[in-house]
Amino acid sequence: MRIRVAEDILKANDLIAQDIRSILDSARVFCVNILGSPGAGKTTLLEATLPRLRERYRAAVIQGDVETSIDGERMEALHVPVVQINTQGGCHLSAPMVSGAIGDFDLTETDLLFIENVGNLVCTASFALGEDMKVTALSVTEGDDKIRKYPTIFLNSKVLVITKTDLLPHVDFDFDKVAREAKLLNPDIHVVPVSAKTGAGIDNWLALLGKHIAVS
Amino acid sequence: MRIRVAEDILKANDLIAQDIRSILDSARVFCVNILGSPGAGKTTLLEATLPRLRERYRAAVIQGDVETSIDGERMEALHVPVVQINTQGGCHLSAPMVSGAIGDFDLTETDLLFIENVGNLVCTASFALGEDMKVTALSVTEGDDKIRKYPTIFLNSKVLVITKTDLLPHVDFDFDKVAREAKLLNPDIHVVPVSAKTGAGIDNWLALLGKHIAVS
Repeated sequence: MRIRVAEDILKANDLIAQDIRSILDSARVFCVNILGSPGAGKTTLLEATLPRLRERYRAAVIQGDVETSIDGERMEALHVPVVQINTQGGCHLSAPMVSGAIGDFDLTETDLLFIENVGNLVCTASFALGEDMKVTALSVTEGDDKIRKYPTIFLNSKVLVITKTDLLPHVDFDFDKVAREAKLLNPDIHVVPVSAKTGAGIDNWLALLGKHIAVS
Repeated sequence: MRIRVAEDILKANDLIAQDIRSILDSARVFCVNILGSPGAGKTTLLEATLPRLRERYRAAVIQGDVETSIDGERMEALHVPVVQINTQGGCHLSAPMVSGAIGDFDLTETDLLFIENVGNLVCTASFALGEDMKVTALSVTEGDDKIRKYPTIFLNSKVLVITKTDLLPHVDFDFDKVAREAKLLNPDIHVVPVSAKTGAGIDNWLALLGKHIAVS
């Protein structure tokens, strides 16, 4: 019975996600759904990304949080259009929430829409939001067993950004093992190590993002 | 309508949690539900805790994971009775899952039952499992904004263990701010900084645990 409810919710969600995708496609907006645990560095990745995209793309951000507008304020400081969605306890963004939010943007003035999801490595994985691709951030401090322990999110992602690589000397994290397990699980996934703190790898991440936008 | 479904599930869960609590109380088993993000250091905290409790308490572990038995195997290496629950995609343990698992232990030979929940700072917060107390692990690498961003879990916890303090020199994490915000939100919460790597603070954590067991 509970599974049936979950299936119905997912089915309803997917229909609305398809609508969002059509609207964004018509407006030629490329949409990236950014996922990861609390503290994986999703907002920090966006802070490292948005200023460097400014000359090529007009970006906007939907910021999903359980509570507060802390991350939305960090985005506003970057002078991009931001809509904050508070899920009020909900553990993931859903397509209906995003559908309500995209009406607040001028899509004719937008090339690229980032959706930063709620910090959650489980529930966010199954809810399509109309994105062109899912990008999952995994920090080196979370440990190198996460691909096997939380496979769904990595199976559904086009890019795995390994964040906080500046901390590699201080933690036990086998990067090659993670990259290998991610590729075994999902041969199409791209794995990019970055440190928003030092800037290492950010160019590779931007190049990968640009390539996906170009072929969309 | 969706909220009603959630409420019904929570209500059914709580009834079973009360049953578990009665069974554990009758058997004089103190039960700790350990929560936190993926990679917060829950399993490592247990690895630092269990060997030091051996002379005082007979401990057992229920290990909750979405997939795999990686953490269950880490617990078995400590020579304690372990039951692994795989939620098969589910984002939190529920009382019915735990109810099925406690039958696998000899409760007359158990003083202390740890339940390590699925790595999730949102969904795990609302599901009682029959525990005497909830303990949430938050690592310094997750950032110092998490109390405000994910309040429910900290509101429901008796102890907040701040983990990986050995990494404090390498990250921006204001310990005093986190402790202050946790206490403002939940005046009854105890905040204990630990490093399982160096052993710092582990004695304080064990003393706090012992005190709660003693008054139960």
